[in-house]
Amino acid sequence: MPNQSPAAGTDPGAVSVRDQVRSLVTPARLAEFFAPQSLALVGASEASGWARFIALASSAVDYTGPVYPVHPKIDSAFGHKAFRNVRDIGEPVDLAFLLAPTHAVEGVIDDMAASGIRNAIVLAAGYREVGPDGRALEQKLIAQCAAAGIVILGPNCLGFLNTHAKTAPFGLGVPLPLTAGPVGVALQSGALATVVLQYAKAHAIGVSSLTTVGNEAMITIEDMIEYLVEDDNTKVIALFLEEISDPVTFGHAAARADAAGKPIVALKVGSSEAGQAAALAHTGSVAGDDAVVNSVLAQLNILRVNSIEELLNTAALLGYDRVPAGRRMGVITASGGACDIIADRSSEQDITIPPFAQQTADAITPHLPSFATAHNPLDVTGVGLAGARTGTLTAIDYALDAAVDDPGLDFVLFSGVNIPDARPPDDELAKVMEDRLEWLSQRMDSSPIPVIPVGSTSVDTGPWARELLGKHHVHVLGGLDFGIKALGNAILWQERRGHVRQSLPQPKIPHGVVLEGAQAWSEAQGRDLLTQAGVPVVPGEVVASAAEAVAAAQRVGTPVAMKIVSAQITHKSDIGGVALGLSSEAEITAAYEKVRAAGDSVAGATVDGVLVTPMRGGGVELLAGVTVDPTFGPTLAVGLGGVWVEIMQDTSLRVLPVDAAEVRKMLEELRGFPLLRGARGSQAANLDALSDAIAGIGETALSLGGALRAFEVNPLWVNGDQVEALDVLVATGPDVETNGAE
Amino acid sequence: MPNQSPAAGTDPGAVSVRDQVRSLVTPARLAEFFAPQSLALVGASEASGWARFIALASSAVDYTGPVYPVHPKIDSAFGHKAFRNVRDIGEPVDLAFLLAPTHAVEGVIDDMAASGIRNAIVLAAGYREVGPDGRALEQKLIAQCAAAGIVILGPNCLGFLNTHAKTAPFGLGVPLPLTAGPVGVALQSGALATVVLQYAKAHAIGVSSLTTVGNEAMITIEDMIEYLVEDDNTKVIALFLEEISDPVTFGHAAARADAAGKPIVALKVGSSEAGQAAALAHTGSVAGDDAVVNSVLAQLNILRVNSIEELLNTAALLGYDRVPAGRRMGVITASGGACDIIADRSSEQDITIPPFAQQTADAITPHLPSFATAHNPLDVTGVGLAGARTGTLTAIDYALDAAVDDPGLDFVLFSGVNIPDARPPDDELAKVMEDRLEWLSQRMDSSPIPVIPVGSTSVDTGPWARELLGKHHVHVLGGLDFGIKALGNAILWQERRGHVRQSLPQPKIPHGVVLEGAQAWSEAQGRDLLTQAGVPVVPGEVVASAAEAVAAAQRVGTPVAMKIVSAQITHKSDIGGVALGLSSEAEITAAYEKVRAAGDSVAGATVDGVLVTPMRGGGVELLAGVTVDPTFGPTLAVGLGGVWVEIMQDTSLRVLPVDAAEVRKMLEELRGFPLLRGARGSQAANLDALSDAIAGIGETALSLGGALRAFEVNPLWVNGDQVEALDVLVATGPDVETNGAE
Repeated sequence: MPNQSPAAGTDPGAVSVRDQVRSLVTPARLAEFFAPQSLALVGASEASGWARFIALASSAVDYTGPVYPVHPKIDSAFGHKAFRNVRDIGEPVDLAFLLAPTHAVEGVIDDMAASGIRNAIVLAAGYREVGPDGRALEQKLIAQCAAAGIVILGPNCLGFLNTHAKTAPFGLGVPLPLTAGPVGVALQSGALATVVLQYAKAHAIGVSSLTTVGNEAMITIEDMIEYLVEDDNTKVIALFLEEISDPVTFGHAAARADAAGKPIVALKVGSSEAGQAAALAHTGSVAGDDAVVNSVLAQLNILRVNSIEELLNTAALLGYDRVPAGRRMGVITASGGACDIIADRSSEQDITIPPFAQQTADAITPHLPSFATAHNPLDVTGVGLAGARTGTLTAIDYALDAAVDDPGLDFVLFSGVNIPDARPPDDELAKVMEDRLEWLSQRMDSSPIPVIPVGSTSVDTGPWARELLGKHHVHVLGGLDFGIKALGNAILWQERRGHVRQSLPQPKIPHGVVLEGAQAWSEAQGRDLLTQAGVPVVPGEVVASAAEAVAAAQRVGTPVAMKIVSAQITHKSDIGGVALGLSSEAEITAAYEKVRAAGDSVAGATVDGVLVTPMRGGGVELLAGVTVDPTFGPTLAVGLGGVWVEIMQDTSLRVLPVDAAEVRKMLEELRGFPLLRGARGSQAANLDALSDAIAGIGETALSLGGALRAFEVNPLWVNGDQVEALDVLVATGPDVETNGAE
Repeated sequence: MPNQSPAAGTDPGAVSVRDQVRSLVTPARLAEFFAPQSLALVGASEASGWARFIALASSAVDYTGPVYPVHPKIDSAFGHKAFRNVRDIGEPVDLAFLLAPTHAVEGVIDDMAASGIRNAIVLAAGYREVGPDGRALEQKLIAQCAAAGIVILGPNCLGFLNTHAKTAPFGLGVPLPLTAGPVGVALQSGALATVVLQYAKAHAIGVSSLTTVGNEAMITIEDMIEYLVEDDNTKVIALFLEEISDPVTFGHAAARADAAGKPIVALKVGSSEAGQAAALAHTGSVAGDDAVVNSVLAQLNILRVNSIEELLNTAALLGYDRVPAGRRMGVITASGGACDIIADRSSEQDITIPPFAQQTADAITPHLPSFATAHNPLDVTGVGLAGARTGTLTAIDYALDAAVDDPGLDFVLFSGVNIPDARPPDDELAKVMEDRLEWLSQRMDSSPIPVIPVGSTSVDTGPWARELLGKHHVHVLGGLDFGIKALGNAILWQERRGHVRQSLPQPKIPHGVVLEGAQAWSEAQGRDLLTQAGVPVVPGEVVASAAEAVAAAQRVGTPVAMKIVSAQITHKSDIGGVALGLSSEAEITAAYEKVRAAGDSVAGATVDGVLVTPMRGGGVELLAGVTVDPTFGPTLAVGLGGVWVEIMQDTSLRVLPVDAAEVRKMLEELRGFPLLRGARGSQAANLDALSDAIAGIGETALSLGGALRAFEVNPLWVNGDQVEALDVLVATGPDVETNGAE
């Protein structure tokens, strides 16, 4: 995966090209780009697999506009007259799909410019994905297009399809039937497009548009989010992400999606990558790349999922159904085993299954066999299956009808939609089934709370089910496993709505330079910085002799800790530069000499003295550290000290800035949080004071701007109302250009 | 879920009935029971939904034997002559399916006995599932059948189907086509049977037999395991479990399955149940019911899964494919995105993706486009899709051909099987595809390592794929998500093979009596018990005066801890009965008086004195406790002390007995294990000595037999080679009948 998108390019001349690109790729232009009603296929012959796919995709979406094959050697293709050059077409062309080889692209762009064609998809590979030469070629292509006012998707991409605009310049297979619907898809991996469409087809999930973004030379993944937010046919955005290369713009787009009420669901790969930021301070080893990504996506209210199935089930739930306003679930099934599975899986998602209200139970009971009871989760039993059907509705429907009015429920999970693959030959029976679905759809609409239909397993939706469900815009989740995960996701999205930060302002430090030239500060300097910023620091004095140490100890209070003060010595304990628990004059004197000698023996180190601080006992020790993530910039990690961080990796992360309220949430996320509330006999910590101090640490780190490399308070000690930084490590380096805070 | 199976019934007369049942339900009898070639359907009319289902199921398995409807009022059903009574049939009947209502069952069994019909399925409900009256009725039914030599499945069940014996007395819908194959299914929830068959159908997973066990009056879930172990057509056993009511027999059956190389996969529900054993000692709160179930299933090498999809994908992988011998995976795909997903998901399963050997890369490279590289995971790219097909094999096949010979791989995950839903009309193309699958099947057979085909998502297997794959006995896992979980499961099964305990011997204490009449011991008594058993205990003396305390402290070494000794005082700290860190004579004297006074002030407590022990610092504290699980009996929990157990719930569980080698594994499972290896500057613990001591604690607890209620050493202290129990709590109660150790 490339580390830099063109937007982050450092070519000085690129700035103006970048501005040109940004002024071209507007929402209005994107709306035009993704709805072309006349297509030129440049380089298309019937021997080309890509061209065949485009022809099939166009047919899949009922494209009826003109198609102009352009090829130097052929006279016709796919039943259309072919042209030698786009200049020869002589009719307006909304979009050209360039199937031409890499070396021919430049010429075709010139031809487009000359003939007024403004939009193109570039399939050719050999650009930035192949290295520096390709990167240069891509920059040249961007400059050429920008100068000509041409917008391209790609290069190295396979186009898009748009079901509502009925157009599909899309060079991949489209499993049929393709259903139009609420899910807008954008993929950084083109090869997965068909896989996504196949699953969507199998579960009758309607797609508004699907786009493969390729190298994102002009239209980026962030532009896709903006486009889909603006697109009225899209209710939910599904992404396959390999990299987030422009986090500031990405954050803006996510905030706009949240404000517009369009959920974003993302399958972001790379969680297994070994990549951990090189660690100068301890924070680096707990704030690994993927942990930061997790935290960023959560901050942006983007739902991160683990599979294509979870991606599409979550998107379908959010796109078709009303989103539950809470976690109290009613469950209506015809199987005790299904109830058990639902209870187990929903418990993992923190979804509760409260008892029915008495009125609900009373309303359901008459529809159950005498041996069954009306409790939540409800099993109406399979007895109904055995008898002849007596009316349109069955026991499970009556149960649903009652449950949706239960005042103690936020939504109902309904596993009662079972439609045969084909319409039964018995017309009367088919009519009963059709009427029942009509009733169900109306009851879902009239229900005070959302009704979420779910299948028992992830088997495909059959043809007749697709037809009936499609008619009523009802979607059935693909099985209990994916379905309940999707529910947990959807509820989380609802809970997080409105809390998205409007941007991710940050000094952005390119890959590889994070630690280059980094310089640690002496602890005394770090303490001064914190103190100036108003963060409470344990009292301390830097002394230059044993006698001064003894006097300082008396002032700060014994027992004391003594530490060497030197910017060059970051691991003080390792060289014997720390002594703890010293009370008597003799102890302090001996310790001074020992610590001082240890410091003086380090070659190249300038020793500024010895720091004397009082020992702190009781209470709880935390770590609050800031690292600079190569993509997202300064990131705060908070955790409990000792085994909690070192062995449990129990930390909470946020990309900075954060306020004290957000820090309070970070603390509550820790598994060790009970210790701060006074578990195991400790004094409850003043969480407000603690959150303020940690927020202050974050602010202090940010105040270093592009020079920040690492900033860590470890331990940060809290005992009731008392909060103190006991040790601080600061490292800075040469200032780097930053994206700036907005 | 009922708590007791009939096998655990306490009716004194039931013992002989139980023996009668056990002598009837033999492997030979089960083999006969599940392959009936003549069926009586008692109570069957065409108006009965159950009877219609049986007719359809029989047709689904191509049943060709005679069917005898038996009904008091009809002359024929489903094209067969009907009889008024089974006595009238006059032909041999292998099995009778009783659709008759509950009150009529007794009479039909009499009629069966009179006419020599030995096997029956009883559908009627109203037995032990409805309470005490039903339980009595069921006991009566069992006694009646046992006396007559009749074996029944059920009551309250829906029968079974057997694809290899082509017989299906099965009162539920069977989705078509039903494929015969290696997976033997038994379900404690009948209503899920159709759901299971539907998923199996969708993914072309062949079933050997599927049985709903109902109330397990005679044929239990354990019998089903035994039957499926003996059944040559079954290669893997898939279970849906609500309860394990006879753990000793269950353990035996699981051990036999493991010895026979037949994996058991189980969807065991109930993980969300709040049920925690009432806690006298701390162990009770960490050894909750479901945690014990997890541990038991792992000890028995039964793979616990979370969904029907995971159940069947895991079973299919184990039933169709060769099981990987290790964790080193080769990955062959045509999509970089799929490679990323595979890497992320397999990392969660501890499956590694090592680089290809040079020879493998060299062999693959010629088949890739120039811009692609031959690394693992491999993306052969979609370029092949665009060009015309030139031969039977494509790039992905050549890559597979090379990868299976890589000496550094244990297996290859292959996502290259893509078969259209229908045979292409172009015969030549169809032939190429058929030839390719033929090649693939042969290469899988000749490959030195297993090749595991997987789909990209969990979409259904299409009709032509079903046909082609079925012909070659190739199964394709249902998507990357379920597929990689299934792989993780299969590898775990392979690793655990041969380590199953042959039984789960235990004092089994019925529900509700665990704490009834339980009595705590004084700490001195507990210390004596441990000492006698050879478990190292911290030195200590029980003293009766302050002067004795001072003298004792000199002998054991200061600083000391002092604790009140009284069987009636289990929470000594809470009443001020503990003093710590005492060194001087004055401190010890004052502490004695305080601790003693605290003990004396507890009403009804007999104080035996004050225990003086030396304080232990450094090292690591653990908890080693034994609770009595209501189902599985004495269960050992081991964890690190303090926050590890109390907040992290970081414990490892085993049903007893365990030896020191198993305890060592328990320690290694702890998340805090690095502390025992000397993380954070602590001295590495002597794990052999520690494991011996903990195994000794388990043995000591077991030595109390049916009187054991709770046994906890907390803390158990280890510092290098030193291991000592610092505190022990023992509680016993009235002796209860136990299942006995075998």
